[in-house]
Amino acid sequence: MADDYQVQANGGDGIRKPLLELYVKASGIDSRRIGACLFCQEFWMELYALYEIGVARVEVKTVNVNSEAFKKNFLGAQPPIMIEEEKGATYTDNREIEGRIFHLAKEFQVPLFEKDPVVEKRIESLYRNFKLFLRAKTDYDKERRDVSSIESLPPQIKTHCNRVVEQLAGIDQLLADRGTRYLLGPSMTEYDCELMPRLHHMRIIGQRLLNFDFPHNLTYLWNYVLTAYRTAAFIESCPADQDILHHYKEQLNMFTNQRETLQSPTKTHTIPEEVLHDIRKRGLDQN
Amino acid sequence: MADDYQVQANGGDGIRKPLLELYVKASGIDSRRIGACLFCQEFWMELYALYEIGVARVEVKTVNVNSEAFKKNFLGAQPPIMIEEEKGATYTDNREIEGRIFHLAKEFQVPLFEKDPVVEKRIESLYRNFKLFLRAKTDYDKERRDVSSIESLPPQIKTHCNRVVEQLAGIDQLLADRGTRYLLGPSMTEYDCELMPRLHHMRIIGQRLLNFDFPHNLTYLWNYVLTAYRTAAFIESCPADQDILHHYKEQLNMFTNQRETLQSPTKTHTIPEEVLHDIRKRGLDQN
Repeated sequence: MADDYQVQANGGDGIRKPLLELYVKASGIDSRRIGACLFCQEFWMELYALYEIGVARVEVKTVNVNSEAFKKNFLGAQPPIMIEEEKGATYTDNREIEGRIFHLAKEFQVPLFEKDPVVEKRIESLYRNFKLFLRAKTDYDKERRDVSSIESLPPQIKTHCNRVVEQLAGIDQLLADRGTRYLLGPSMTEYDCELMPRLHHMRIIGQRLLNFDFPHNLTYLWNYVLTAYRTAAFIESCPADQDILHHYKEQLNMFTNQRETLQSPTKTHTIPEEVLHDIRKRGLDQN
Repeated sequence: MADDYQVQANGGDGIRKPLLELYVKASGIDSRRIGACLFCQEFWMELYALYEIGVARVEVKTVNVNSEAFKKNFLGAQPPIMIEEEKGATYTDNREIEGRIFHLAKEFQVPLFEKDPVVEKRIESLYRNFKLFLRAKTDYDKERRDVSSIESLPPQIKTHCNRVVEQLAGIDQLLADRGTRYLLGPSMTEYDCELMPRLHHMRIIGQRLLNFDFPHNLTYLWNYVLTAYRTAAFIESCPADQDILHHYKEQLNMFTNQRETLQSPTKTHTIPEEVLHDIRKRGLDQN
C-alpha cells in the first residue's frame, strides 16, 4: 500500500502505468539468452505494443526452468509467467496473462485483440502441420543417415510438406487480397504476435534441419516475414537462430554439436535477395 | 474422412459426439498415475461434465513429460494437451483448450462458463497466497530442522498464514450467503473446476508439510470440500495424496523418502468427524 502511494506521488504525468514483469524461458545453451518459447514471444510482443504507446511499463526476465531457485519460487508453474507486483498478482496461466493484457488494451483502446474469423481459420494448424512434417522428415532422414532433399522424399513424407506449402500459399493469398502491412490492417494484432514467431521458427528450422524453404514465389508471405523483421516488438523478443535450433534438437533427441553452443548468437532477419527484389519491384515494402 | 463416416454411421442416436483426448501430466512416482497438475485436473473436470451429459466422448492419458517419446511427439508442448483427431486439431495452449470446451458447452447449452465477478474476485490469488505461505514456512522450518506449529511462528511468517485463512473465511461466507451446492448454483461451473483441486492440494500439503488445516469452524467451506469429494468429475481426476505430496516436495527441493514412493496410492476424500457432525446438524449436505 505504501508502495502504491509512492508510485502515484512520483508519477509526473498523472497517469499510473502498471509495471508488468514477464518471465520467459531461457535458452538451453545459456540461461541469460532468450529461449525458443512461442507463447513467451507472443505475450512479449503484445506487452511491447502496450509499452510502445505508453500504456504499461514492461520488464522481461529469462528463467532457467531447471534451476532449484526457479522451481522453489514458482512451485510448478511454467513460463510464460507474468507478475504485477502492485496488485500482488501472479499470472501463471496463458488465459490469465492474455486476460490482463486484453483488459489493458481495452482500457486504452489499443486494437490488439480485434477478431477476424477468416484470418483465424487461415493460420490455425499451420504450425501443427509443420511439426508433423518436421517429425516425419527427421525420422526418415535419421534412418537414411542423410538430410534428404524435398524432391527425393517418398509420397507419405512429401504429403506433410505439401500440406504446409498449401497453407503458406493460403496465407500469401490472404495478404495479397488484403494489401495490408499486418494481417488485419496497418497495426499489429494478436494474430501477428501468434503467426510471426511461428513463421520464423519454421524458416530457421526448415533451413537448418529440413532442406526446406518457403517457396520464393510467395512474395506476399515473404513480405510479411520482412515486416516481422522490421517490427521492434518482434525483433526485441526474438531468440537467436542457435537457440531456436537447440530447442528443436532437444525435443527431437538430436545431437547438438559444440560448434552450435559455442557460436556467438546470430539472428537471421534478412530474406533471400531474389525475393527482396520482387517485393521492391511491386512496391510491397512501402505498405 | 472414412473414419468420420463410420462414426456417423455407427452412432445410434444420430448425434455425432466428438472424441476429445486429454493428455495429463503423469506422477513423478509412477508415470501410469495422475500427477498433481492443476490445469490438467481443471480441464479434465470440465470434459467430464460434457461427457456426463452425453455431449462428448473423452479419453484421458497420462504422459511422462521427461520421456523421449513424449518430447518427440509434442515437440516442446506441455500438458495439458488436448487432441481432437477427427478435426486434425491439437490444442496445446490453455486458451485453445478452454476455447474448444467453451464452444461445445455453448453448442449444447451447458452452463459451465457462466460468469460471476463476485466469485471470481473471492477466489483469485487464494492459491498464490497459499504458495507464499508454503515457501515461507518450509524455509523457516528448514533452518530450524523441525516442522513448527502455526502458533509458534514469528509474525512475518504468521502473516502469510493469516492471509490464507482470511481468504478461506471469505469463501466460507460467500457459500453461506448463497446456500448453494456449487459456487454459482446447483451445478458445477468452471469456477468449481478451478477452486476444488486447489483447495484439495492446500489441504493435503497443509496436513503433510505445514501442520496446517482449514479452521474447523468454516463449516460452509468444509461442506464445499465434501461436495468435491462427492463429485464424480473431481474424484475421477484427482491425484493420490502421495502424488500431490511428491509434486510439491520436488518443487521445494525436499527429500522424498522411499516410504512415500513405495506406498500404495491413497486419496484423502474424507473430512474431520467433528466438522462432518456440524454439517449434518445444519443439514448442509442436503443441498
